[in-house]
Amino acid sequence: MAKKSLALSKVYGLLEPGPVVLLSTARKGKPNIMTMSWHTMLEFEPPLIGCVVSNRNYSFSLLKASKECVINIPSVELAKKVVKVGNCSGREVDKFAAFGLTPVAASQVQPPLIDECFANLECRVVDTRMVNAYNFFVLEVVKAWIDPARKDARTIHHRGWGAFMVAGETIMLPSRMR
Amino acid sequence: MAKKSLALSKVYGLLEPGPVVLLSTARKGKPNIMTMSWHTMLEFEPPLIGCVVSNRNYSFSLLKASKECVINIPSVELAKKVVKVGNCSGREVDKFAAFGLTPVAASQVQPPLIDECFANLECRVVDTRMVNAYNFFVLEVVKAWIDPARKDARTIHHRGWGAFMVAGETIMLPSRMR
Repeated sequence: MAKKSLALSKVYGLLEPGPVVLLSTARKGKPNIMTMSWHTMLEFEPPLIGCVVSNRNYSFSLLKASKECVINIPSVELAKKVVKVGNCSGREVDKFAAFGLTPVAASQVQPPLIDECFANLECRVVDTRMVNAYNFFVLEVVKAWIDPARKDARTIHHRGWGAFMVAGETIMLPSRMR
Repeated sequence: MAKKSLALSKVYGLLEPGPVVLLSTARKGKPNIMTMSWHTMLEFEPPLIGCVVSNRNYSFSLLKASKECVINIPSVELAKKVVKVGNCSGREVDKFAAFGLTPVAASQVQPPLIDECFANLECRVVDTRMVNAYNFFVLEVVKAWIDPARKDARTIHHRGWGAFMVAGETIMLPSRMR
Protein backbone atom coordinates (compact mmCIF):
# COMPACT_ATOMS: atom_id res chain seq x y z
CA MET A 1 0.00 0.00 0.00
CA ALA A 2 1.46 3.30 -1.15
CA LYS A 3 -0.77 5.34 1.11
CA LYS A 4 0.25 8.18 3.34
CA SER A 5 -1.32 9.79 6.35
CA LEU A 6 -3.75 12.59 5.48
CA ALA A 7 -4.24 15.55 7.85
CA LEU A 8 -7.62 15.26 9.54
CA SER A 9 -8.34 18.87 8.57
CA LYS A 10 -8.45 17.78 4.92
CA VAL A 11 -10.93 14.93 5.31
CA TYR A 12 -14.03 17.00 4.53
CA GLY A 13 -12.73 17.73 1.03
CA LEU A 14 -12.96 14.04 0.21
CA LEU A 15 -16.53 13.49 1.40
CA GLU A 16 -18.24 16.81 0.81
CA PRO A 17 -18.51 16.22 -2.98
CA GLY A 18 -20.79 13.24 -2.17
CA PRO A 19 -19.01 10.11 -3.44
CA VAL A 20 -20.30 6.59 -3.06
CA VAL A 21 -18.18 4.95 -0.37
CA LEU A 22 -17.54 1.46 0.90
CA LEU A 23 -18.06 1.03 4.64
CA SER A 24 -16.03 -1.74 6.23
CA THR A 25 -17.02 -3.17 9.59
CA ALA A 26 -16.00 -6.28 11.52
CA ARG A 27 -17.09 -8.59 14.28
CA LYS A 28 -14.87 -11.22 15.86
CA GLY A 29 -12.27 -10.67 13.17
CA LYS A 30 -14.72 -11.29 10.33
CA PRO A 31 -15.03 -8.19 8.14
CA ASN A 32 -17.90 -7.01 5.98
CA ILE A 33 -18.43 -4.25 3.40
CA MET A 34 -21.45 -2.22 2.39
CA THR A 35 -22.00 0.39 -0.28
CA MET A 36 -23.14 3.73 1.13
CA SER A 37 -24.18 7.11 -0.26
CA TRP A 38 -26.17 8.67 2.55
CA HIS A 39 -23.50 10.57 4.42
CA THR A 40 -22.66 14.18 5.27
CA MET A 41 -19.96 16.11 7.05
CA LEU A 42 -21.06 17.45 10.45
CA GLU A 43 -17.85 19.16 11.58
CA PHE A 44 -14.48 20.04 10.03
CA GLU A 45 -12.07 19.09 12.83
CA PRO A 46 -12.06 16.73 14.42
CA PRO A 47 -13.92 15.48 11.36
CA LEU A 48 -17.42 14.34 12.25
CA ILE A 49 -19.51 12.46 9.71
CA GLY A 50 -23.17 11.53 9.88
CA CYS A 51 -24.28 8.48 7.90
CA VAL A 52 -27.29 6.25 7.46
CA VAL A 53 -26.74 2.51 7.79
CA SER A 54 -30.13 0.86 7.44
CA ASN A 55 -31.14 -1.68 10.06
CA ARG A 56 -31.97 -3.96 7.12
CA ASN A 57 -28.25 -4.16 6.34
CA TYR A 58 -25.98 -6.74 7.98
CA SER A 59 -23.49 -3.93 8.64
CA PHE A 60 -25.97 -2.24 10.98
CA SER A 61 -25.52 -4.80 13.74
CA LEU A 62 -21.74 -4.89 13.28
CA LEU A 63 -21.47 -1.12 13.50
CA LYS A 64 -23.83 -0.88 16.45
CA ALA A 65 -21.93 -3.57 18.35
CA SER A 66 -18.33 -2.65 17.56
CA LYS A 67 -18.76 1.12 17.19
CA GLU A 68 -15.94 1.14 14.66
CA CYS A 69 -15.76 1.29 10.88
CA VAL A 70 -13.66 2.45 7.95
CA ILE A 71 -15.00 4.66 5.18
CA ASN A 72 -13.18 3.65 2.00
CA ILE A 73 -13.47 5.83 -1.10
CA PRO A 74 -13.42 3.99 -4.44
CA SER A 75 -12.66 5.54 -7.80
CA VAL A 76 -14.58 4.79 -11.00
CA GLU A 77 -12.22 1.92 -11.83
CA LEU A 78 -13.86 0.01 -8.95
CA ALA A 79 -17.44 0.84 -9.96
CA LYS A 80 -18.42 -2.69 -10.99
CA LYS A 81 -17.18 -4.10 -7.69
CA VAL A 82 -18.94 -1.34 -5.75
CA VAL A 83 -22.21 -2.41 -7.35
CA LYS A 84 -21.58 -6.07 -6.61
CA VAL A 85 -20.90 -5.22 -2.96
CA GLY A 86 -24.23 -3.39 -2.85
CA ASN A 87 -26.17 -6.18 -4.54
CA CYS A 88 -25.57 -8.82 -1.85
CA SER A 89 -25.51 -9.23 1.92
CA GLY A 90 -22.68 -10.05 4.29
CA ARG A 91 -25.03 -12.54 5.89
CA GLU A 92 -24.42 -14.81 2.89
CA VAL A 93 -21.23 -13.59 1.23
CA ASP A 94 -17.63 -12.95 2.31
CA LYS A 95 -17.37 -9.85 0.17
CA PHE A 96 -13.59 -9.41 0.40
CA ALA A 97 -13.07 -12.91 -0.99
CA ALA A 98 -15.97 -12.87 -3.44
CA PHE A 99 -14.99 -9.60 -5.13
CA GLY A 100 -11.20 -9.73 -4.85
CA LEU A 101 -10.85 -6.84 -2.43
CA THR A 102 -7.82 -6.72 -0.14
CA PRO A 103 -8.20 -6.10 3.60
CA VAL A 104 -5.34 -4.18 5.21
CA ALA A 105 -5.03 -3.69 8.96
CA ALA A 106 -6.11 -0.28 10.19
CA SER A 107 -4.05 1.58 12.78
CA GLN A 108 -6.76 2.69 15.22
CA VAL A 109 -9.78 0.44 14.65
CA GLN A 110 -10.50 -3.24 14.14
CA PRO A 111 -12.26 -3.18 10.73
CA PRO A 112 -9.82 -3.32 7.80
CA LEU A 113 -9.02 -0.73 5.19
CA ILE A 114 -9.87 -1.73 1.61
CA ASP A 115 -6.52 -1.51 -0.15
CA GLU A 116 -7.95 -0.87 -3.63
CA CYS A 117 -9.69 2.35 -2.52
CA PHE A 118 -7.65 5.54 -2.95
CA ALA A 119 -8.55 6.92 0.48
CA ASN A 120 -9.52 5.35 3.81
CA LEU A 121 -10.95 6.99 6.92
CA GLU A 122 -10.74 5.10 10.21
CA CYS A 123 -13.78 6.01 12.29
CA ARG A 124 -15.32 5.54 15.71
CA VAL A 125 -19.03 5.91 16.45
CA VAL A 126 -19.37 8.85 18.83
CA ASP A 127 -23.13 9.40 18.97
CA THR A 128 -25.96 6.87 18.57
CA ARG A 129 -28.85 9.08 19.67
CA MET A 130 -30.27 9.27 16.14
CA VAL A 131 -29.96 5.57 15.38
CA ASN A 132 -33.45 4.64 16.50
CA ALA A 133 -35.16 7.43 14.60
CA TYR A 134 -33.13 7.49 11.39
CA ASN A 135 -30.49 4.71 11.47
CA PHE A 136 -28.15 7.70 11.62
CA PHE A 137 -24.70 7.23 13.17
CA VAL A 138 -22.29 10.03 14.04
CA LEU A 139 -18.68 9.04 13.35
CA GLU A 140 -15.41 10.70 14.26
CA VAL A 141 -12.52 10.17 11.87
CA VAL A 142 -9.50 9.23 13.99
CA LYS A 143 -7.03 8.46 11.19
CA ALA A 144 -7.06 9.18 7.46
CA TRP A 145 -5.05 7.69 4.61
CA ILE A 146 -4.66 8.65 0.96
CA ASP A 147 -2.73 7.42 -2.04
CA PRO A 148 -0.86 10.62 -3.00
CA ALA A 149 -0.65 9.50 -6.61
CA ARG A 150 -4.45 9.28 -6.82
CA LYS A 151 -5.67 12.22 -4.75
CA ASP A 152 -7.68 13.48 -7.73
CA ALA A 153 -9.21 10.08 -8.46
CA ARG A 154 -12.57 10.20 -10.21
CA THR A 155 -15.24 9.21 -7.73
CA ILE A 156 -18.73 7.87 -8.49
CA HIS A 157 -21.96 9.43 -7.28
CA HIS A 158 -25.21 7.49 -7.03
CA ARG A 159 -28.29 8.74 -8.92
CA GLY A 160 -30.37 5.62 -8.26
CA TRP A 161 -31.33 2.37 -9.98
CA GLY A 162 -27.98 1.72 -11.60
CA ALA A 163 -27.19 5.28 -12.68
CA PHE A 164 -23.92 6.69 -11.40
CA MET A 165 -22.48 10.11 -12.17
CA VAL A 166 -18.72 9.99 -12.65
CA ALA A 167 -16.80 12.95 -11.23
CA GLY A 168 -15.82 15.38 -13.97
CA GLU A 169 -13.31 18.20 -14.14
CA THR A 170 -12.46 20.42 -11.18
CA ILE A 171 -12.88 24.17 -11.64
CA MET A 172 -11.47 26.92 -9.42
CA LEU A 173 -13.66 29.83 -8.34
CA PRO A 174 -12.94 32.80 -6.05
CA SER A 175 -14.70 31.24 -3.08
CA ARG A 176 -13.90 32.19 0.49
CA MET A 177 -15.79 29.16 1.79
CA ARG A 178 -13.56 26.63 3.51
CA MET B 1 -40.97 29.04 -15.05
CA ALA B 2 -41.11 25.88 -17.16
CA LYS B 3 -40.98 23.61 -14.13
CA LYS B 4 -43.16 20.63 -13.45
CA SER B 5 -44.03 18.74 -10.32
CA LEU B 6 -41.58 15.94 -9.49
CA ALA B 7 -42.77 12.80 -7.69
CA LEU B 8 -41.48 12.86 -4.11
CA SER B 9 -40.19 9.31 -4.58
CA LYS B 10 -37.63 10.68 -7.06
CA VAL B 11 -36.20 13.41 -4.87
CA TYR B 12 -33.34 11.32 -3.45
CA GLY B 13 -31.85 10.90 -6.93
CA LEU B 14 -31.23 14.65 -7.08
CA LEU B 15 -29.49 14.99 -3.72
CA GLU B 16 -27.73 11.66 -3.23
CA PRO B 17 -24.95 12.53 -5.72
CA GLY B 18 -23.95 15.36 -3.34
CA PRO B 19 -24.46 18.64 -5.23
CA VAL B 20 -23.90 22.08 -3.81
CA VAL B 21 -27.34 23.57 -3.19
CA LEU B 22 -28.79 26.98 -2.45
CA LEU B 23 -30.98 27.10 0.64
CA SER B 24 -33.65 29.79 0.61
CA THR B 25 -35.29 30.92 3.82
CA ALA B 26 -37.46 33.89 4.76
CA ARG B 27 -38.63 35.97 7.67
CA LYS B 28 -41.41 38.55 7.49
CA GLY B 29 -41.43 38.25 3.71
CA LYS B 30 -37.72 39.02 3.39
CA PRO B 31 -35.89 36.10 1.79
CA ASN B 32 -32.30 35.01 2.12
CA ILE B 33 -30.06 32.45 0.41
CA MET B 34 -27.10 30.40 1.61
CA THR B 35 -24.77 27.99 -0.16
CA MET B 36 -24.80 24.52 1.39
CA SER B 37 -22.99 21.24 0.85
CA TRP B 38 -23.44 19.39 4.13
CA HIS B 39 -26.62 17.43 3.49
CA THR B 40 -27.69 13.81 3.24
CA MET B 41 -30.82 11.83 2.53
CA LEU B 42 -32.30 10.19 5.61
CA GLU B 43 -35.37 8.51 4.08
CA PHE B 44 -36.72 7.85 0.58
CA GLU B 45 -40.40 8.65 1.02
CA PRO B 46 -41.58 10.89 2.35
CA PRO B 47 -38.17 12.30 1.52
CA LEU B 48 -36.28 13.26 4.65
CA ILE B 49 -33.07 15.27 4.41
CA GLY B 50 -30.58 16.07 7.13
CA CYS B 51 -28.50 19.22 6.71
CA VAL B 52 -26.09 21.39 8.63
CA VAL B 53 -26.83 25.12 8.79
CA SER B 54 -24.19 26.68 10.99
CA ASN B 55 -25.34 28.97 13.76
CA ARG B 56 -22.79 31.45 12.40
CA ASN B 57 -24.97 31.83 9.28
CA TYR B 58 -27.81 34.34 9.11
CA SER B 59 -29.96 31.56 7.64
CA PHE B 60 -29.74 29.62 10.91
CA SER B 61 -32.04 31.97 12.80
CA LEU B 62 -34.48 32.20 9.87
CA LEU B 63 -34.68 28.45 9.54
CA LYS B 64 -35.01 27.90 13.26
CA ALA B 65 -37.78 30.50 13.57
CA SER B 66 -39.81 29.75 10.43
CA LYS B 67 -39.13 26.01 10.17
CA GLU B 68 -39.44 26.26 6.41
CA CYS B 69 -36.95 26.43 3.55
CA VAL B 70 -36.43 25.57 -0.10
CA ILE B 71 -33.48 23.53 -1.37
CA ASN B 72 -32.63 24.85 -4.83
CA ILE B 73 -30.22 22.90 -7.04
CA PRO B 74 -28.02 24.99 -9.32
CA SER B 75 -26.20 23.73 -12.39
CA VAL B 76 -22.65 24.68 -13.33
CA GLU B 77 -23.87 27.67 -15.32
CA LEU B 78 -24.73 29.31 -11.98
CA ALA B 79 -21.41 28.45 -10.31
CA LYS B 80 -20.10 32.00 -10.10
CA LYS B 81 -23.32 33.19 -8.47
CA VAL B 82 -23.28 30.24 -6.07
CA VAL B 83 -19.84 31.33 -4.88
CA LYS B 84 -20.92 34.95 -4.51
CA VAL B 85 -23.90 33.83 -2.41
CA GLY B 86 -21.50 31.90 -0.18
CA ASN B 87 -19.03 34.74 0.15
CA CYS B 88 -21.40 37.18 1.90
CA SER B 89 -24.05 37.30 4.60
CA GLY B 90 -27.77 38.02 4.41
CA ARG B 91 -27.24 40.31 7.38
CA GLU B 92 -25.66 42.81 4.98
CA VAL B 93 -26.81 41.83 1.49
CA ASP B 94 -30.15 41.22 -0.25
CA LYS B 95 -28.76 38.30 -2.22
CA PHE B 96 -31.65 37.96 -4.69
CA ALA B 97 -31.18 41.57 -5.77
CA ALA B 98 -27.39 41.64 -5.56
CA PHE B 99 -26.85 38.56 -7.70
CA GLY B 100 -29.78 38.75 -10.09
CA LEU B 101 -31.62 35.70 -8.82
CA THR B 102 -35.38 35.51 -9.26
CA PRO B 103 -37.65 34.58 -6.35
CA VAL B 104 -40.77 32.62 -7.31
CA ALA B 105 -43.56 31.87 -4.84
CA ALA B 106 -43.53 28.32 -3.48
CA SER B 107 -46.74 26.33 -3.18
CA GLN B 108 -46.43 24.96 0.37
CA VAL B 109 -43.92 27.15 2.20
CA GLN B 110 -43.16 30.85 2.63
CA PRO B 111 -39.53 30.98 1.36
CA PRO B 112 -39.29 31.44 -2.40
CA LEU B 113 -37.98 29.08 -5.05
CA ILE B 114 -34.94 30.32 -6.97
CA ASP B 115 -36.15 30.35 -10.55
CA GLU B 116 -32.69 29.94 -12.14
CA CYS B 117 -32.09 26.59 -10.39
CA PHE B 118 -33.18 23.51 -12.35
CA ALA B 119 -34.84 21.84 -9.35
CA ASN B 120 -36.48 23.12 -6.18
CA LEU B 121 -37.52 21.21 -3.08
CA GLU B 122 -40.01 22.84 -0.70
CA CYS B 123 -39.20 21.67 2.83
CA ARG B 124 -40.47 21.83 6.39
CA VAL B 125 -38.27 21.28 9.44
CA VAL B 126 -39.58 18.16 11.18
CA ASP B 127 -36.92 17.48 13.82
CA THR B 128 -34.68 19.94 15.67
CA ARG B 129 -33.28 17.56 18.29
CA MET B 130 -29.80 17.62 16.70
CA VAL B 131 -29.62 21.38 16.24
CA ASN B 132 -27.90 22.11 19.52
CA ALA B 133 -25.26 19.42 19.10
CA TYR B 134 -24.51 19.67 15.37
CA ASN B 135 -26.57 22.52 13.84
CA PHE B 136 -28.28 19.60 12.10
CA PHE B 137 -31.86 20.05 10.88
CA VAL B 138 -34.12 17.27 9.64
CA LEU B 139 -36.29 18.42 6.72
CA GLU B 140 -39.23 16.79 5.00
CA VAL B 141 -39.70 17.60 1.33
CA VAL B 142 -43.36 18.46 0.85
CA LYS B 143 -43.28 19.52 -2.80
CA ALA B 144 -40.65 19.09 -5.53
CA TRP B 145 -40.21 20.86 -8.85
CA ILE B 146 -37.95 20.20 -11.81
CA ASP B 147 -37.32 21.71 -15.22
CA PRO B 148 -37.91 18.65 -17.43
CA ALA B 149 -35.61 20.05 -20.11
CA ARG B 150 -32.73 20.17 -17.62
CA LYS B 151 -33.16 17.05 -15.51
CA ASP B 152 -29.62 15.96 -16.38
CA ALA B 153 -28.11 19.36 -15.60
CA ARG B 154 -24.46 19.28 -14.55
CA THR B 155 -24.27 19.99 -10.85
CA ILE B 156 -21.27 21.28 -8.90
CA HIS B 157 -19.69 19.53 -5.91
CA HIS B 158 -17.57 21.34 -3.35
CA ARG B 159 -14.02 20.15 -2.70
CA GLY B 160 -13.06 23.14 -0.55
CA TRP B 161 -11.27 26.49 -0.88
CA GLY B 162 -12.63 27.36 -4.30
CA ALA B 163 -12.32 23.92 -5.89
CA PHE B 164 -15.54 22.52 -7.33
CA MET B 165 -15.94 19.22 -9.15
CA VAL B 166 -18.34 19.50 -12.07
CA ALA B 167 -20.60 16.49 -12.60
CA GLY B 168 -19.35 14.29 -15.42
CA GLU B 169 -20.97 11.59 -17.51
CA THR B 170 -23.56 9.18 -16.13
CA ILE B 171 -22.84 5.46 -16.46
CA MET B 172 -25.29 2.59 -16.05
CA LEU B 173 -24.35 -0.46 -14.00
CA PRO B 174 -26.36 -3.58 -13.06
CA SER B 175 -27.18 -2.30 -9.59
CA ARG B 176 -30.20 -3.50 -7.65
CA MET B 177 -29.81 -0.64 -5.17
CA ARG B 178 -32.66 1.82 -5.25
